[in-house]
Amino acid sequence: MTMRGLSAFPITPTDAAGRPLPADLRRLILRLARAGVDSIGVLGSTGGYAYLEADQRREVLETALDAAGGRVPVIAGVGALRSDTSAALARHAADAGATGLLLAPMSYTPLTEDEVFGHFETVAGASDLPICIYNNPSTTHFTFSPALIARLASLPTVTAVKMPLPAGGDFAGQIAALRADLPPDFAIGYSGDWGCPDALLNHADGWFSVAAGLWPDQTLTLACAARAGDRPETARWQARFQPMWDLFQAHGSLRVVHACARLMDLTDAQPPRPILPLPDALTPRLRAAMHALDD
Amino acid sequence: MTMRGLSAFPITPTDAAGRPLPADLRRLILRLARAGVDSIGVLGSTGGYAYLEADQRREVLETALDAAGGRVPVIAGVGALRSDTSAALARHAADAGATGLLLAPMSYTPLTEDEVFGHFETVAGASDLPICIYNNPSTTHFTFSPALIARLASLPTVTAVKMPLPAGGDFAGQIAALRADLPPDFAIGYSGDWGCPDALLNHADGWFSVAAGLWPDQTLTLACAARAGDRPETARWQARFQPMWDLFQAHGSLRVVHACARLMDLTDAQPPRPILPLPDALTPRLRAAMHALDD
Repeated sequence: MTMRGLSAFPITPTDAAGRPLPADLRRLILRLARAGVDSIGVLGSTGGYAYLEADQRREVLETALDAAGGRVPVIAGVGALRSDTSAALARHAADAGATGLLLAPMSYTPLTEDEVFGHFETVAGASDLPICIYNNPSTTHFTFSPALIARLASLPTVTAVKMPLPAGGDFAGQIAALRADLPPDFAIGYSGDWGCPDALLNHADGWFSVAAGLWPDQTLTLACAARAGDRPETARWQARFQPMWDLFQAHGSLRVVHACARLMDLTDAQPPRPILPLPDALTPRLRAAMHALDD
Repeated sequence: MTMRGLSAFPITPTDAAGRPLPADLRRLILRLARAGVDSIGVLGSTGGYAYLEADQRREVLETALDAAGGRVPVIAGVGALRSDTSAALARHAADAGATGLLLAPMSYTPLTEDEVFGHFETVAGASDLPICIYNNPSTTHFTFSPALIARLASLPTVTAVKMPLPAGGDFAGQIAALRADLPPDFAIGYSGDWGCPDALLNHADGWFSVAAGLWPDQTLTLACAARAGDRPETARWQARFQPMWDLFQAHGSLRVVHACARLMDLTDAQPPRPILPLPDALTPRLRAAMHALDD
């Protein structure tokens, strides 16, 4: 159940030395819990998990769980280059009270399908938590074949996949093809915010959303309209989000939501170097895109 | 000077928990120092830098420097996802006595050219050691444009580049195009062992070699023939290496040299999981490829 609906992925605010800022994270999590998103995904790509040490990641998850206070399920990103690191993080997440795991096959040396299967098997063996396959070739540099997703679904706790947007936009075709080889209760969700309302209109199970990490109410409204099949309302909200989607696509959502969180006075955090903050010249466009989401 | 000629990149032997095995590493380094390669590159991709903690990386470099004993220059890989991590490793490498740095722009969130430039500027500011740009899109997921290489060469300590093999095999054309925008003493080297003798025949300055990490004498003979422009001798040695190059290309050189180092009784180390050891069924092919290199 955890891996369905709107999952909000906040940034992990950090100081200039890369250390998490727990008070700022708590502020972000409280906004999401109050808005009532279906789940909160901490330590996803937007949460900068790849740039944090293992002990910092444990601290971030504990802070988020405490702030969420059981009101909203929390999914923990446990991706790492080494299988033993991911397995240890999975054990910690289970002990700490997370509801599910998001597992990205981070890679440096390009991985084979057997290696990625072994990685998931190792992490699945470390806890009883449900695992969502994180399929995002642009960051992990590994592309899951439909056959590998089906093979991974044979592991009893692998119950969901987070897919990138299909190149041609054919959600219905891709979802039907995936479902044909997956257990009936396996959840198929998407990331890439600009395309996800269309995924929900086509009966995807979930939207893993960067925007929901900062604008949970507006994203929930859009997600609800799309899940209900209300195309006019979906189109109306998509139009309001369009300036933000344009910024996400041009500059990367991680850079954009860091800049917006600063403009919203939620944190002073910057992305981890070498990632650069957006130039000040973009501030008017950021403000306009945020204004389009105001009531 | 350090970044020219044949640079040998050994594996970093580790135990099942990923901890470096100093005695095994020392054994590998001694073989390279005795053979007289032009430099030793520790903590490159083959050295598994991406899978080691910062303190393990410092330990590995210190072990290698001690084993090399000043007889052969040692280049230290200082790539990391965070700029501050790479800068700290660069400072340590300078203090410990490394002769040069190899800097890979590891990435998770895809990086812009300005971000990679800033990353190199930060690391260059951390020590006086010469820096070789590590251009290997298959592992770092960043591709350097010729313009960015030229811009980086404006940093006084950025003095070399390690290039991937050109897609069409036109070394002469690529080297000429690069040299046109680079300082005259800037070193252009290649990795991708099977193509590097051809690069040297076309006056590349260096060969960053995985094979040289295990078979330094044979690789030196091939490199010397190619640098001298001796095409028949180069072709003869390329034919002897061909079975090994086929294995490198089919299975990835990291997996192959780990398997060979075990067969050579140099270490019991396996690659870091999720990377899997090669299946036993390949052992006869590995032995045949090694036998082809015997005198």
